[in-house]
Amino acid sequence: MLTLLYAGSPGLWPAYQAALGAALAEAGIAARLVRPGEAAPESVDYLIYAPNGPVQDFASFTRARAVLSLWAGVERVVGNPTLTQPLCRMVDEGLARGMVEWVLGQVLRAHLGLDAHILNHSGRWEQIAPPLATERSVTVLGLGALGAAAASALAGLGFRVTGWSRSPKEIEGVRCLAGAAGLAEALAAGEIVVTILPNTPETANILNAETLAMLPRGAVVLNPGRGTLIDDEALLAALESGQVAQATLDVFRTEPLPPEHPYWAHPRVTVSPHIAAETRPASAARVIVENIRRGEAGEPFLYRVDSARGY
Amino acid sequence: MLTLLYAGSPGLWPAYQAALGAALAEAGIAARLVRPGEAAPESVDYLIYAPNGPVQDFASFTRARAVLSLWAGVERVVGNPTLTQPLCRMVDEGLARGMVEWVLGQVLRAHLGLDAHILNHSGRWEQIAPPLATERSVTVLGLGALGAAAASALAGLGFRVTGWSRSPKEIEGVRCLAGAAGLAEALAAGEIVVTILPNTPETANILNAETLAMLPRGAVVLNPGRGTLIDDEALLAALESGQVAQATLDVFRTEPLPPEHPYWAHPRVTVSPHIAAETRPASAARVIVENIRRGEAGEPFLYRVDSARGY
Repeated sequence: MLTLLYAGSPGLWPAYQAALGAALAEAGIAARLVRPGEAAPESVDYLIYAPNGPVQDFASFTRARAVLSLWAGVERVVGNPTLTQPLCRMVDEGLARGMVEWVLGQVLRAHLGLDAHILNHSGRWEQIAPPLATERSVTVLGLGALGAAAASALAGLGFRVTGWSRSPKEIEGVRCLAGAAGLAEALAAGEIVVTILPNTPETANILNAETLAMLPRGAVVLNPGRGTLIDDEALLAALESGQVAQATLDVFRTEPLPPEHPYWAHPRVTVSPHIAAETRPASAARVIVENIRRGEAGEPFLYRVDSARGY
Repeated sequence: MLTLLYAGSPGLWPAYQAALGAALAEAGIAARLVRPGEAAPESVDYLIYAPNGPVQDFASFTRARAVLSLWAGVERVVGNPTLTQPLCRMVDEGLARGMVEWVLGQVLRAHLGLDAHILNHSGRWEQIAPPLATERSVTVLGLGALGAAAASALAGLGFRVTGWSRSPKEIEGVRCLAGAAGLAEALAAGEIVVTILPNTPETANILNAETLAMLPRGAVVLNPGRGTLIDDEALLAALESGQVAQATLDVFRTEPLPPEHPYWAHPRVTVSPHIAAETRPASAARVIVENIRRGEAGEPFLYRVDSARGY
């Protein structure tokens, strides 16, 4: 009977308790899943870890065969001097699938004009059929793994998709543009624009007063990428002027988004609480359990972090 | 220069004026598009017709080469004794595509729990990631052309899809059930249930007190099919009890839905104003213009109605 310590976010304990239990049962692994304080550190076989969890000192976990992170990003732990155990990061196929579902759902919501009906309890019947996806232009900024998956899925539904990235890419069914010259053309096509770029100095405030003005008037902005991609003051001004009709934002410079932030009260802004690219307990638990199985069988771990490279 | 009389719904005139103008230009056909009263009946070359439009007496249109219906259903006109011109019904590829887009948008909205964010301007950040589509069961009642297309598209996004029809069907990626025995099993799987059945004596009130009770508690009901499929009193009772968490209805026994109908004010009902399977002006206009081109070239019309068969 293995002892597994859940040291992830306390708020996600119920979800991970269920998901890990199911994945362990599926794999036929007998284990007891405990929370900090429920077992002596030296009795723990595997640590299930998150950078925002309660355990950041690994010295007393003398028996632990590995620290299995629930997060993809391990920059906050990889240099931890108490970490002598193997560290594995999370590569969660559910994350990309979840991102694609969020993007498809939000693009279809904007495309079909669902809010007008969701919010209309007035008794006014206004029968205006939306255009078809084949008549709707969507632009995806960022064609990394997540952006490319979202752009392909949108093209699969029939949307006219333009993708933009710093270096040239090719994606079937997607008009791919690149570099500074391509950005203006990509923005001009964005009746709905989706930002799925990483957080780098080059992408900071990529949607600003100048670039928001390049969108077609009345565009919809969807940001499931990074909070830093958007100049918030410029977006609020564009919403006021009508240049941007609606924005749905999943990521913010400060999270949770402070209650006094003007996005919360804005009638044409939807605050989505960082759920688009969230690691999903069910698929993440299968990755964790597969690594436990490998550890017990003496096989190499998946996604083991090389502390020299840092990832 | 041909004279085309638009005798469709007056409310759709702006949309059809633009769409027909674009389709005529694309086809290189010179024509003047008029509304009733703007040209003498005997000068009209083609009538663009709808059963809810202003022209139901065709006797004076002595020059008209055809009556081109914007509706697929022609049961209200096929027996009209004044109709001596060829009648063509609408077969609009946009209709099936539009239905699929509406179903995908509404299913993703329910699946992702978008309403909670759209309606939340409170400043409360509640980060609960939705499950993946692979963990969500959706049931489609009705596997005709539209229902099968919707079920396939949902399966393509990864949902666990159960389809039900009166006679057995096979659709790749969809668990197909049939007949009275299959209905209970199909309903039991419907965390989200979509009704896309025709209006027949057998389908009337197929969602009633007894069948709604077979759904998983907290199910979401989506009806883009026919208003007659749902026992409205039973659905309201199921919403009150929590058996049904939310309903989005696109079709009703009386349309427009009367302002005093309890669906309008209900906080967990969304009234969608019959737009899911609406003929789309852009694609319908291309069908109309293709038939005008055929008429002028002496080629047989598309979708010509056989008055003996009635369709």
